[in-house]
Amino acid sequence: MQLGMIGLGRMGGNIVRRLLRDGHTAVVFDQNPAAVAGLVEAGAIGASSLEDLVSKLEAPRTAWVMLPAGAITEEAVTTLGGLMQAGDCIIDGGNSFYGDDVRRGIELKAKGLHYVDVGTSGGVWGLERGYCMMIGGDTETVDRLDPIFKTLAPGIGDIPKTPGREGRDPRAEQGYIHAGPTGAGHFVKMVHNGIEYGLMQAYAEGFDILKHANSEALPAERRFDLNMGDIAEVWRRGSVVSSWLLDLTAQALAGDESLHDFSGYVEDSGEGRWTINAAIEESVPATVLSAALYRRFRSREQESYADKLLSAMRKGFGGHQEPKKS
Amino acid sequence: MQLGMIGLGRMGGNIVRRLLRDGHTAVVFDQNPAAVAGLVEAGAIGASSLEDLVSKLEAPRTAWVMLPAGAITEEAVTTLGGLMQAGDCIIDGGNSFYGDDVRRGIELKAKGLHYVDVGTSGGVWGLERGYCMMIGGDTETVDRLDPIFKTLAPGIGDIPKTPGREGRDPRAEQGYIHAGPTGAGHFVKMVHNGIEYGLMQAYAEGFDILKHANSEALPAERRFDLNMGDIAEVWRRGSVVSSWLLDLTAQALAGDESLHDFSGYVEDSGEGRWTINAAIEESVPATVLSAALYRRFRSREQESYADKLLSAMRKGFGGHQEPKKS
Amino acid sequence: MQLGMIGLGRMGGNIVRRLLRDGHTAVVFDQNPAAVAGLVEAGAIGASSLEDLVSKLEAPRTAWVMLPAGAITEEAVTTLGGLMQAGDCIIDGGNSFYGDDVRRGIELKAKGLHYVDVGTSGGVWGLERGYCMMIGGDTETVDRLDPIFKTLAPGIGDIPKTPGREGRDPRAEQGYIHAGPTGAGHFVKMVHNGIEYGLMQAYAEGFDILKHANSEALPAERRFDLNMGDIAEVWRRGSVVSSWLLDLTAQALAGDESLHDFSGYVEDSGEGRWTINAAIEESVPATVLSAALYRRFRSREQESYADKLLSAMRKGFGGHQEPKKS
Amino acid sequence: MQLGMIGLGRMGGNIVRRLLRDGHTAVVFDQNPAAVAGLVEAGAIGASSLEDLVSKLEAPRTAWVMLPAGAITEEAVTTLGGLMQAGDCIIDGGNSFYGDDVRRGIELKAKGLHYVDVGTSGGVWGLERGYCMMIGGDTETVDRLDPIFKTLAPGIGDIPKTPGREGRDPRAEQGYIHAGPTGAGHFVKMVHNGIEYGLMQAYAEGFDILKHANSEALPAERRFDLNMGDIAEVWRRGSVVSSWLLDLTAQALAGDESLHDFSGYVEDSGEGRWTINAAIEESVPATVLSAALYRRFRSREQESYADKLLSAMRKGFGGHQEPKKS
Repeated sequence: MQLGMIGLGRMGGNIVRRLLRDGHTAVVFDQNPAAVAGLVEAGAIGASSLEDLVSKLEAPRTAWVMLPAGAITEEAVTTLGGLMQAGDCIIDGGNSFYGDDVRRGIELKAKGLHYVDVGTSGGVWGLERGYCMMIGGDTETVDRLDPIFKTLAPGIGDIPKTPGREGRDPRAEQGYIHAGPTGAGHFVKMVHNGIEYGLMQAYAEGFDILKHANSEALPAERRFDLNMGDIAEVWRRGSVVSSWLLDLTAQALAGDESLHDFSGYVEDSGEGRWTINAAIEESVPATVLSAALYRRFRSREQESYADKLLSAMRKGFGGHQEPKKS
Repeated sequence: MQLGMIGLGRMGGNIVRRLLRDGHTAVVFDQNPAAVAGLVEAGAIGASSLEDLVSKLEAPRTAWVMLPAGAITEEAVTTLGGLMQAGDCIIDGGNSFYGDDVRRGIELKAKGLHYVDVGTSGGVWGLERGYCMMIGGDTETVDRLDPIFKTLAPGIGDIPKTPGREGRDPRAEQGYIHAGPTGAGHFVKMVHNGIEYGLMQAYAEGFDILKHANSEALPAERRFDLNMGDIAEVWRRGSVVSSWLLDLTAQALAGDESLHDFSGYVEDSGEGRWTINAAIEESVPATVLSAALYRRFRSREQESYADKLLSAMRKGFGGHQEPKKS
Repeated sequence: MQLGMIGLGRMGGNIVRRLLRDGHTAVVFDQNPAAVAGLVEAGAIGASSLEDLVSKLEAPRTAWVMLPAGAITEEAVTTLGGLMQAGDCIIDGGNSFYGDDVRRGIELKAKGLHYVDVGTSGGVWGLERGYCMMIGGDTETVDRLDPIFKTLAPGIGDIPKTPGREGRDPRAEQGYIHAGPTGAGHFVKMVHNGIEYGLMQAYAEGFDILKHANSEALPAERRFDLNMGDIAEVWRRGSVVSSWLLDLTAQALAGDESLHDFSGYVEDSGEGRWTINAAIEESVPATVLSAALYRRFRSREQESYADKLLSAMRKGFGGHQEPKKS
Repeated sequence: MQLGMIGLGRMGGNIVRRLLRDGHTAVVFDQNPAAVAGLVEAGAIGASSLEDLVSKLEAPRTAWVMLPAGAITEEAVTTLGGLMQAGDCIIDGGNSFYGDDVRRGIELKAKGLHYVDVGTSGGVWGLERGYCMMIGGDTETVDRLDPIFKTLAPGIGDIPKTPGREGRDPRAEQGYIHAGPTGAGHFVKMVHNGIEYGLMQAYAEGFDILKHANSEALPAERRFDLNMGDIAEVWRRGSVVSSWLLDLTAQALAGDESLHDFSGYVEDSGEGRWTINAAIEESVPATVLSAALYRRFRSREQESYADKLLSAMRKGFGGHQEPKKS
């Protein structure tokens, strides 16, 4: 099947490569001509502009936008919307806010265009492992694009089948789902990332407690000098907390377990925030997911106004003069 | 190698079965004669009392206590301590508080006895998958017992090796570690369970948000009627949040995804609480792990005095009369 | 000074009464003719519609909207915007979202109208104690309306002056501030309510711990049967936690300290939610304020899908069958 | 009435001064002779040792220990216990763990000695405002010491009476209560401090959100440059969040509202931690109080191992290389 790809970064480029490997064809465009050249070498057809890309696709056209969420994706979708014709389809495979999808879907539908949002998990590992995809859009279009999704998905692999799923939608165990109408794909992917923050923070706190088990604040007979790397490794086998994130943790701790190269400045992307906004809108108590997000905010503060105010109050009622941070 | 087992519940019984399968021998005791009889049938030697069990073991004796933590385990360890001789070893494989291990280790050492604490993860799946074990005790004893641990551990299996671990303690990738001196095993297991609570709560909140995506509080164009089972299933493949807990979630949701059979009353065991106590003692901010524990506390309250007081204050300053819960 | 008041509920009605007492005049309107009649009796001029109200005001007109936030306020502001003339002013004294203020301010400015947002704290106590007001709008208009605000504010009263404020804006110690441009008033009021949730939850949790100090889970020698009412009362005098909310708590607990009449269903209004959204937008870790909001969400759930999922996972890995809630 | 005071720091010294002013007599001891001399000048009788102090008291003796909690208080109580006679009384007015009180009470009772624990709030303001006291001990002893407590307490002052308290224990509105048996005083004081942390954090987060309302991350039309000092001041009058802590906040912000002199390193004392331990023991969800404690822990970390581990995981799955903190 033929696909146009706009944005040939790590994700977009590897998606095209995985498609080409499986016999699909691709017309590709990127602001950076070298990125286009690289994929032409791999068998794709290069395009020099969005116009050129659209002109090289056969109707009904499908153009996958794989760009940073926000203004850049918005501009690309808008431009494509002006270039494409009724029956064509625009896919946003980036990390867009699902509310933007809903809006775009309504706008493009008025022109007879289809809009599909694909939440994509897999990161740098996707080319090899495949991409886990959560898809939003009208059923007819999502079904038409099935060959694309099937190629990109990881497939069943050697992961055991879930008992009791007989007769259910077989796409889920292939690694992709049609989650619902436009926006549903990115909504599910958003919550996925919210959960990811929570899981990561749970491991991080646990290892923090293990790391400080040798603290001088503890009675000598209850201090332990634990091996972080071995603990992460052993939990990979037969324990309740085994996971892919734990595998990555074990890899990180197999090296320098002091993690000296990291400063502890942790970024967050939109999904974690939108997840909390959605929870609040739904009146769902998202205690752990919020706590995880806030720890990232706090990790980026050298000094906290909130903390200073606590010190100021303490000075006010108790005459406490806090020490400076060393 | 010969092992005495006290406590033939689901865990103790299966541990013995796994040992027998691999050529070890076992002397077994339980308050319930039927449990003893069941294992005798499987090849173990039955004992009618702790005295009988000790008398049937060859020196240096090793007795594994697999009983409910607290008073019951304490009594068994104390009794065994009185029956055994210098050079013998008592293993506590239950869910004891690590501080109790430290104390017992000191007491038994005075009599020349060895004490080993084994934090065991694996639950009902252990017989088949093996047990992930975190072991505390003196090196000589732990090394002497290695054949037992090796048999019980899951082994490398088909789990990929962690890059960068070459030359490290090979036991970790077999599924067991010698974490440190007495108490270290249960300390690591305790934090393991603390993490488990956090991971579970992260998934629970995420699916709660997904489940409520169809809430009437949301604008109609942003409501989604999502399929919980398919979402859990798709995340098992290639996504960042894949884990064994997610596998279990997918199984649960493959059935009745409304989870109608569950009331939402969630118990907690000591480890989650002790983890928080340890974090506080170490001054480690365990935000997510605490939040997860508290959600379990809250799940068991039909009415909350804290909530009532909020209502009382609201009535006081705003004249708000809260509705009754329906 | 003359003021038009739209909305004669508890807040709007008492605001008019306080103004009339101090020599101001008021034209009043409410959907409910009886509410209008009540204030006419108190000395106000009644109006039968928004048109009638506007026609009875002298230019430059000032109309204070005191209606439920959202669609009802929006409609009133829009209608007034169509009826009033350049130089006139609309005040929104309700609990509007500050983003709506910003939008309305821009729209009305295009017609030469002024828009002022007033965050008002004081509840049912305002008539007697005065209203604490946080005001957003252009300086000229806010200054012109100063006589109104001065009358409504509590005044210095017998609250001690804050040392070091000499030479600062004297309005703050009168109980009102010009917080900034349009929207700033409701923004500050929003955060005020966010803080309120946090304070309330802190007291609620503390008294919950005190109330359960007699729990049978505790060792007998460490159980205490504490008197909630006396504790709240004693903290009112000389303690660090004394506050108006504590005064209200002491009042509530002076009655039935079991709080039997309350079900523990706690509502929340928009401000607490918007505060969290604002914190997230600013990357400020609002851990306590979020936790307080979520406890309210949770208080309204009879059963939690998240909790059920925890039980389902526990059954999956440990065979635990949770008891039903009694 | 006669009182012996051990420990003449800010708290102990001022307590003696307040007692002397009201006609009581005191025998005083401190490691530092200058502290003793200062109070002798104020009218107290000096003692050169604990023995000397005990010898100068008339039976039944009362010795108030006002020393740092932990080993120092423990040693003083033990020594006094050896010097005093049946019928005498030891008061611990410091910040001891209530469990220590329970233990000491049992030990001293065996010798016929009384033990009273007094949780004292008031800090540097106590001499002037009086001390809010929460008292644990047997009724006979607490009643016998009433003249001391009455003098130290703030009294009714100009704080309005709580409606509905007619007929209740009048000591509460004087500012002291007999909370229950030994340990109850410090237990209530402990929870008081736990609440204090929660209240402080609620204000701190609120002002943090206000302070960042001018963040460049926000759309220009929704940015506000707010005056922290004026906001704190205005909330002192008629608002729901008025409190003594807010008064102190207003004072701090009346000066340099950037709080430049504070580094944001916030200490915590035992009570906040013990409150969480107590909550966990009681299965009470103390979400906000825990979050407040953890923010203090975090405030003291320059780098967090937990944060570093998050960065390591992010690098593992997404190739993200976090920036260094600037």
